[in-house]
Amino acid sequence: MTNTPTTSNKQDNLIQAWAAQASGAALTPFQFDAGPLGNEEVEIAVAYCGICHSDLSMLDNEWGMTNYPFVPGHEAVGRIVRLGSQATNKGLQLGQTVGIGWHSTSCMHCHPCLSGDHNLCGQAQPTIVGRHGGFADKLRCHWAWAIPLPEQLDISSAGPLFCGGITVFNPLLQHKILPTQRVGVVGIGGLGHLALRFMRAWGCEVTAFTSSSSKHAEAMALGAHRVVASNDSAALRSLAGQLDFVLVTANVALDWNAFIQTLAPKGRLHFVGAIPKPLGLAVFPLLLQQASVSGSPTGSPASIGEMLAFCARHQIAPQVEHFALSEVNAALDHLRAGKARYRLILDMQK
Amino acid sequence: MTNTPTTSNKQDNLIQAWAAQASGAALTPFQFDAGPLGNEEVEIAVAYCGICHSDLSMLDNEWGMTNYPFVPGHEAVGRIVRLGSQATNKGLQLGQTVGIGWHSTSCMHCHPCLSGDHNLCGQAQPTIVGRHGGFADKLRCHWAWAIPLPEQLDISSAGPLFCGGITVFNPLLQHKILPTQRVGVVGIGGLGHLALRFMRAWGCEVTAFTSSSSKHAEAMALGAHRVVASNDSAALRSLAGQLDFVLVTANVALDWNAFIQTLAPKGRLHFVGAIPKPLGLAVFPLLLQQASVSGSPTGSPASIGEMLAFCARHQIAPQVEHFALSEVNAALDHLRAGKARYRLILDMQK
Repeated sequence: MTNTPTTSNKQDNLIQAWAAQASGAALTPFQFDAGPLGNEEVEIAVAYCGICHSDLSMLDNEWGMTNYPFVPGHEAVGRIVRLGSQATNKGLQLGQTVGIGWHSTSCMHCHPCLSGDHNLCGQAQPTIVGRHGGFADKLRCHWAWAIPLPEQLDISSAGPLFCGGITVFNPLLQHKILPTQRVGVVGIGGLGHLALRFMRAWGCEVTAFTSSSSKHAEAMALGAHRVVASNDSAALRSLAGQLDFVLVTANVALDWNAFIQTLAPKGRLHFVGAIPKPLGLAVFPLLLQQASVSGSPTGSPASIGEMLAFCARHQIAPQVEHFALSEVNAALDHLRAGKARYRLILDMQK
Repeated sequence: MTNTPTTSNKQDNLIQAWAAQASGAALTPFQFDAGPLGNEEVEIAVAYCGICHSDLSMLDNEWGMTNYPFVPGHEAVGRIVRLGSQATNKGLQLGQTVGIGWHSTSCMHCHPCLSGDHNLCGQAQPTIVGRHGGFADKLRCHWAWAIPLPEQLDISSAGPLFCGGITVFNPLLQHKILPTQRVGVVGIGGLGHLALRFMRAWGCEVTAFTSSSSKHAEAMALGAHRVVASNDSAALRSLAGQLDFVLVTANVALDWNAFIQTLAPKGRLHFVGAIPKPLGLAVFPLLLQQASVSGSPTGSPASIGEMLAFCARHQIAPQVEHFALSEVNAALDHLRAGKARYRLILDMQK
């Protein structure tokens, strides 16, 4: 293997994917010409690709920004097969295993990019918005967004770390959560189950909040020290003033003022899910407790790298179910039905 | 002067104050027996006392926790005239000039108190809640809450620093605002005018937001680099993505989602006023910008000390209007009418 830029012919630029031709439609095989590889780009042969709720939201054009044909997939892992001419000296090697998550490129020169906050770049392009995603044999991104996978991590389950994982890991970094703190996770699903594993390994006392009593035992197994029903207002009241950091991974409306009451002085209620209804937050409790409410989207390349090293050291992986690429529509239905435990992976070679 | 605990006789415990006998009533002279000085207490001879909007709110029983007769006043400055037996070795001297603000005592042993966050103590007692305040010849507090006034500060205008001042200074400390940041102040009144002075001295680029065009020139004189109409949605849009920290001192409902839009990535909208209406905050913009919304109440003894040292070094004082104690009702009317520019002081010896 060498780092010499690979020349390409037209055949190299054809990508075999699965796409929806219209909102909510089933995916069918779809070939497209991706054009010449950009100078700053990396191309990977996708080995595994996670399926995220955002893929469904985009498939259904929930956010009004989907172009069809639409190729989902933004939790892709695979080996680098091509490097653009300006991507050969950026620490990446042909044949190296990397992951590509929610973002595929950012401008690299704005204030957030130069500050290491590439995920907050105003020009950052999501992998499945205006681009074709990772339900395909090949996927491209800017070199900065191809994040090397540590050898200790299992390539077949790592994909969801690159979107779901970093979405819940980034807040721990951003808000400098300490192992002495008492933390909570609201919603135990694709994101929440990883948050529990991260927070337990982080050294915190961890409370899981779920509306599903069937998940209590699983939440404990995933790392929670206790499980509380998220819709039980008496149970929430019993936690008054106790939690330093509550991470909301649910995307339904709950009684947020009741969760604010669970916060300790200087506590924080942090959202990573796009709650559709405005938060009707009372100001006085925020003042009295010196509390914060905040949100964040995925994470930067540097923070993804930190998360992967943390996962390797603590042997953390997503809990996944596998589907062959040819079963992609069954996999999407499984996710839609809320049956995923907890994250789905497409095996691209099957 | 010595630090020997002073013995007291019954006469010493009589305090001459001004009180309201009922909600919203005019203040009239009122004498009460404060009982023996507590071991941990300090008593000051009040020289000057600021008048704060919270005094009006309590006078009118807006928060449903006022007892009558009610003595307002929680921005008191004066000399120490008595020290309790356990307050003699705490760095305070008889005759020393100190200030007493919103809080008069805290438990000293809970986690927030032991962490230096005495203002977040669940047992902290406000000076005018369940106690008689500083519109009086004498006022008492726990020794920790009697904060020495640096010699460089003018005793006749310092009072408002102990509530209004620390309320807007504390957020700069808590959120580690840097002089490289771009900040804003919403509402240019008793709190906002001090925030402008603090932020300008802090080294930040400062934007003032006010709904009152009559205050534009004053806001510039107080330290703003620019003034924007807080109800001009086009002007707010022109600031999209620019501000790192916006401090809301207003206590009326504004278009908070429009202010969220003015935040730079990782920006923060911080409330110190008790906005009566819930904040109808959209979550998605918080996520995209990794933004925070928060609140805080006054500050701890240590942070009050830091503020006073900062004021001494930067020659910052509240802009005040003086009233004799006998004119207290006229002063309250002046404040009620929104005419204060910007903070009112009662001269207790007149």
